[in-house]
Amino acid sequence: MPKQNAFYAQSGGVTAVINASACGVIETARKYSSQIGTVYAGRNGIIGALREDLIDTSKESASAIRGLLTTPAGAFGSCRHKLKSLTENRAEYERLIEVFKAHNIGYFFYNGGGDSADTCLKIAQMGESMDYPIQAIHIPKTIDNDLPLTDNSPGFGSVAKYIAISTREAAMDIASMCETSTKVFILEVMGRHAGWIAAASGLAAEQEGDAPHIILFPEIAFEREKFLARVQRTVQERGYCVIVASEGTQYKDGTFLTESSVVDAFGHQQLGGLAPALAGMVRSELGYKYHWAVADYLQRSARHIASQTDLDQAYAVGKAAVEYAIAGKNSVMPAIIRGEGKEYSWSISEAPLEEIANQEKMMPRDYITDDGFGITEAGREYLAPLIYGEAYPEYRNGMPIYTRLKLEPVAKKLATGFKV
Amino acid sequence: MPKQNAFYAQSGGVTAVINASACGVIETARKYSSQIGTVYAGRNGIIGALREDLIDTSKESASAIRGLLTTPAGAFGSCRHKLKSLTENRAEYERLIEVFKAHNIGYFFYNGGGDSADTCLKIAQMGESMDYPIQAIHIPKTIDNDLPLTDNSPGFGSVAKYIAISTREAAMDIASMCETSTKVFILEVMGRHAGWIAAASGLAAEQEGDAPHIILFPEIAFEREKFLARVQRTVQERGYCVIVASEGTQYKDGTFLTESSVVDAFGHQQLGGLAPALAGMVRSELGYKYHWAVADYLQRSARHIASQTDLDQAYAVGKAAVEYAIAGKNSVMPAIIRGEGKEYSWSISEAPLEEIANQEKMMPRDYITDDGFGITEAGREYLAPLIYGEAYPEYRNGMPIYTRLKLEPVAKKLATGFKV
Repeated sequence: MPKQNAFYAQSGGVTAVINASACGVIETARKYSSQIGTVYAGRNGIIGALREDLIDTSKESASAIRGLLTTPAGAFGSCRHKLKSLTENRAEYERLIEVFKAHNIGYFFYNGGGDSADTCLKIAQMGESMDYPIQAIHIPKTIDNDLPLTDNSPGFGSVAKYIAISTREAAMDIASMCETSTKVFILEVMGRHAGWIAAASGLAAEQEGDAPHIILFPEIAFEREKFLARVQRTVQERGYCVIVASEGTQYKDGTFLTESSVVDAFGHQQLGGLAPALAGMVRSELGYKYHWAVADYLQRSARHIASQTDLDQAYAVGKAAVEYAIAGKNSVMPAIIRGEGKEYSWSISEAPLEEIANQEKMMPRDYITDDGFGITEAGREYLAPLIYGEAYPEYRNGMPIYTRLKLEPVAKKLATGFKV
Repeated sequence: MPKQNAFYAQSGGVTAVINASACGVIETARKYSSQIGTVYAGRNGIIGALREDLIDTSKESASAIRGLLTTPAGAFGSCRHKLKSLTENRAEYERLIEVFKAHNIGYFFYNGGGDSADTCLKIAQMGESMDYPIQAIHIPKTIDNDLPLTDNSPGFGSVAKYIAISTREAAMDIASMCETSTKVFILEVMGRHAGWIAAASGLAAEQEGDAPHIILFPEIAFEREKFLARVQRTVQERGYCVIVASEGTQYKDGTFLTESSVVDAFGHQQLGGLAPALAGMVRSELGYKYHWAVADYLQRSARHIASQTDLDQAYAVGKAAVEYAIAGKNSVMPAIIRGEGKEYSWSISEAPLEEIANQEKMMPRDYITDDGFGITEAGREYLAPLIYGEAYPEYRNGMPIYTRLKLEPVAKKLATGFKV
């Protein structure tokens, strides 16, 4: 078979280390240049393929590609665009095949979360049903840590580290000031359906009574009275109370504490504003002085304090994806497998996409304490190694050096455009 | 004169490096142990003196004191408590003299901002008018960077670094996603009356057109239509718009964009919620998808990415305060003086407290661009060196090692308490 090119794209919310996966893909493909041609990156994810808007990564120097290791966010642009099923929108698939054929693309690497795994699976299915041979490999990435079959998802470890450190630092601030000033601090973190990120804040605590004193998980129904009673008791006992709240915190009936009418491209409701809502409760019911923070994008782009473990894994799944492709595999995802034994270890193994797409891995209930406000020792044991190591970028004049690629477009070969 | 003890306390909002000043004070006092006795730290600032709640720093090991260099927030506790004038509340001053006499305290080191400089000045005045000899030295600290006579204030450089880095990182996130998702990102930062912190976000930009695209300063009256027009133009031209807004942003008539009824101990209104207010404007008028973050305490406690320059200066002002005391000085503050020449340099020089207390240094107008939405080259030249260098803490198991002191109380010598 003549040598074919590869398509690589980033999808969904970006992370501090998704570019490390890109680096793993491109460096490994270059290493196997006798088997794989050029890696074409989609500008803004799958949309780049639909629009025939491809980036020629062969025009980037080796040092620029290496620089992706220390550069946050999506260097090639990402997107929120979910492919419909073949029967619902056949035109999109026909267009993809047209573009792939035009550029001799035989490998499809898609770097994303659960929704993107679904896109990747559909590409593999398209290849079979529409008789266009393509190997579709999904590269895991999501700060939500909710992909099944993999022990954890690249991107999560760095958010976890950022949130754990920020919680510890802010808690020391409140502890210093609580005698005459702020008594309650609320940090709102991401996590729509699964409380993994909120749980990571629990790593801030070293001793009994340390902050965070209350963690709010989407998995545990929010009870206003129970929450306020715990805040009050904590302030009475400790002098202050630190709360870390997942944006997905909801009442028993499934309504969020703050509902917003904005809906994203995947049909998910856009959340936010939970921290001020909780602060309002604390003020009106308990009268404590409060402060609140919303980390939002700061948490998922915080490359300046990325986890070395996370970075290594992000690179490894990118590298493994290319190796799987060369080995002739299709419709799989490199998964992270945790080793047995007390010392943390991990390896990469393949997982079938059919069992990953559109699945959400929830936190095991036994990672959350019985009262629903904290993490257990089992939770801590799972989370702790994911934040090991500090993968610092280099700095110049006090600012991190983040790579800017040339992003040279590949000449279009098709006469027609495509409206996305 | 027999050897006297020293009182040291932390006041007002804490910073990532205020403990470095404490380290400078304690290490230098230990070095001059033939001239200065024990450094007693006030628990929770001046309140510790009023309550005779003193901490014996001589019980802390040399390595614990060194550990303060890498520990954020106020290790001895801080407070928001402003002394009234001698005529208004003579009882407080009489109590202070009683406590200082009981513990043979002849040196008063107060580590804070403008309000605290006022407290420090009053202590010096009290010493004279009430015939109790005490040398009061103010040690500058404020993230607001609004102390006069000093080129900058310790604590600011680290916040500036954190905000500049966070802005760059978040901006890369939006840039990756803007094609199909978030178009506008708003980061709310501290700065009640002076826009220094918001200005620091301007260091995130390297090239024309880089984020932040709009900075909102308290110094520039907010004009809704002008703001929205700029947001729209930026999204049209760049695909996305990053806004950094000072919490003190206000309309021409002096009203804040979001007013809150909460007032702190110094009589300042407690602000917050500007970011969602701006986001609401963007949504209702322009319809763009947005995200917003509020850094709040995360910015001022972010020791994990402190500026080395800031850290060095924080230590130096603590050290200089003790040296001034030994040299017999009173009612002064060690100020940071910027050297001439192209290469950044600084030294410490004394400044009189009378000219510091209750003064606020505003940003020079020529640091802000004519349109009021950015920083000029002059502003950049001033700000840039303050974030030079990365003063990383050490880590264990992925988390920074922050010092916990023993905080052993000094035995009380007075029969009576004092209600604060």
